[in-house]
Amino acid sequence: MSAEEREAARGMMQKAELGRTAEKQRAEFDELFASRPLGDDVKLVERTLGGVPALEVHVDGADADGVILYLHGGSYVVGSARTGANLAAPLSRRSGVPAVSLDYRLAPEHAFPAGIHDALAAYRELVESGQNVVIVGDSAGGGLGLATMIAARAEGLPLPAGAVLLSPWTDVSLKSPSMDSRDEDDPLFSRANMAESAEFYLGGADPKNELASPVFADLKGLPPLLVQVGTAEILLDDSLRLVARAAEQDVDVSLDVVAGAPHVFQYFAGFLSEADESLDHAATFIKNRLRDKSVGAVA
Amino acid sequence: MSAEEREAARGMMQKAELGRTAEKQRAEFDELFASRPLGDDVKLVERTLGGVPALEVHVDGADADGVILYLHGGSYVVGSARTGANLAAPLSRRSGVPAVSLDYRLAPEHAFPAGIHDALAAYRELVESGQNVVIVGDSAGGGLGLATMIAARAEGLPLPAGAVLLSPWTDVSLKSPSMDSRDEDDPLFSRANMAESAEFYLGGADPKNELASPVFADLKGLPPLLVQVGTAEILLDDSLRLVARAAEQDVDVSLDVVAGAPHVFQYFAGFLSEADESLDHAATFIKNRLRDKSVGAVA
Repeated sequence: MSAEEREAARGMMQKAELGRTAEKQRAEFDELFASRPLGDDVKLVERTLGGVPALEVHVDGADADGVILYLHGGSYVVGSARTGANLAAPLSRRSGVPAVSLDYRLAPEHAFPAGIHDALAAYRELVESGQNVVIVGDSAGGGLGLATMIAARAEGLPLPAGAVLLSPWTDVSLKSPSMDSRDEDDPLFSRANMAESAEFYLGGADPKNELASPVFADLKGLPPLLVQVGTAEILLDDSLRLVARAAEQDVDVSLDVVAGAPHVFQYFAGFLSEADESLDHAATFIKNRLRDKSVGAVA
Repeated sequence: MSAEEREAARGMMQKAELGRTAEKQRAEFDELFASRPLGDDVKLVERTLGGVPALEVHVDGADADGVILYLHGGSYVVGSARTGANLAAPLSRRSGVPAVSLDYRLAPEHAFPAGIHDALAAYRELVESGQNVVIVGDSAGGGLGLATMIAARAEGLPLPAGAVLLSPWTDVSLKSPSMDSRDEDDPLFSRANMAESAEFYLGGADPKNELASPVFADLKGLPPLLVQVGTAEILLDDSLRLVARAAEQDVDVSLDVVAGAPHVFQYFAGFLSEADESLDHAATFIKNRLRDKSVGAVA
């Protein structure tokens, strides 16, 4: 990423104001992200999954076996299946694997662990219908993806073939040193923003609960993980700590760190070459994990 | 990797005896690795590079622009350009990029920093002939690759387009916690082995010298790095610490951790699917970095 590209990307962002209501936050987020064009090759179809509203993301030609369960970002407070489709669609296009993007319940109206219950119910329906799943989530959706796998493991469900976590928020107790050391680099978030969202999400629950902050969880037995993060993020260490812990617990894990890139920089595909390369890597990972799983099923 | 595959891979290895002379270590290493078939599509041609003996690794059809400078492993004491060709050839085949494998001087006869002088001289000749270089090294060759870039930066040479480090030995002061915590998992090395090699290599130099142990170096400005490591390695944390430091210093860095895999598991390509996937990833990384560099050169 050139210095000019980085500045341009950062210029499109600004730190969120504090003290906005959830409704105002949602309206602003939707204005930015809920009507971005997905491409003429994409159709969205409403459905439910485990009783939870969802959007099937159909990209022409993406009809390989398996399914991407996409969990959108938005600090557990904002975002929707539709905003998640902005990244589910290009991943589906590049991997050839169909996707479904979930409208899990949001805080503060539905605090922890309501979103996890929704994601687990959706995951259970996919698994029980015989599908091989790769979970993909960005930001809060990355933390939710981890929590969903941990909850699935606890219930004895088969685990997904793998998971892709884009700038995941893994520690709502906000213990990552980058919360402070990267504050000036991050064009979007501050510790104060994240604290506000964490309070909405937790609704009084312990921030170190391993389903709320999976960086503290026992990760043993989780499927292969791919984590991508930029260095212009206060969430940088949420990724680095997760990856180190996964490696220490003998989980297959891959990491892409993009210097100077902001939160969920994959949004800049077509504009920043690193975003395209990261989506290509994620698509290859998704295909390889589903291939491994189908080899395993035959063997 | 299945439990059976992992056990099979481990069964091919055993912890090295202590107290062997360098000559005996070299004879044993060469017996295992210096006559492995490279494939009918490979020809080796002797040359020198910066006055240092080397082997050009010609794989049929691998004639893209750019060159892989391969730095073999062997604890700075054993190995050769020929043993390095065992991994340089498959990387060249998969990436389409030609390779040259270097016979840098070995310890204890030629202690630190003789090997770095050789690698830097070879790198300088490639750069001065106008070639775009990706440095690839395994084990000690990974540490040497990092040291070569740090030395090149200090001399004001253009840096390579990227570097691929396979189970790199980045800390000859042996401070990685995995030196002890992974001892039972590692079928090949123990702290005592590594201490013996470090003593040969250092010849009395400070083990925390940043060229001997680049995990302590200022990494700022280094090109993108791809690090691959297994969890059945006492060198696991040599990789994890390097990656965390690179990210903190705003270096583009990618990591692949393969659970249960032994040191330089890429040797098991064709036998372990993770080894093939890792070499494919490395080849994609090499192509992308050389592409970025040539885009930069045109712009």
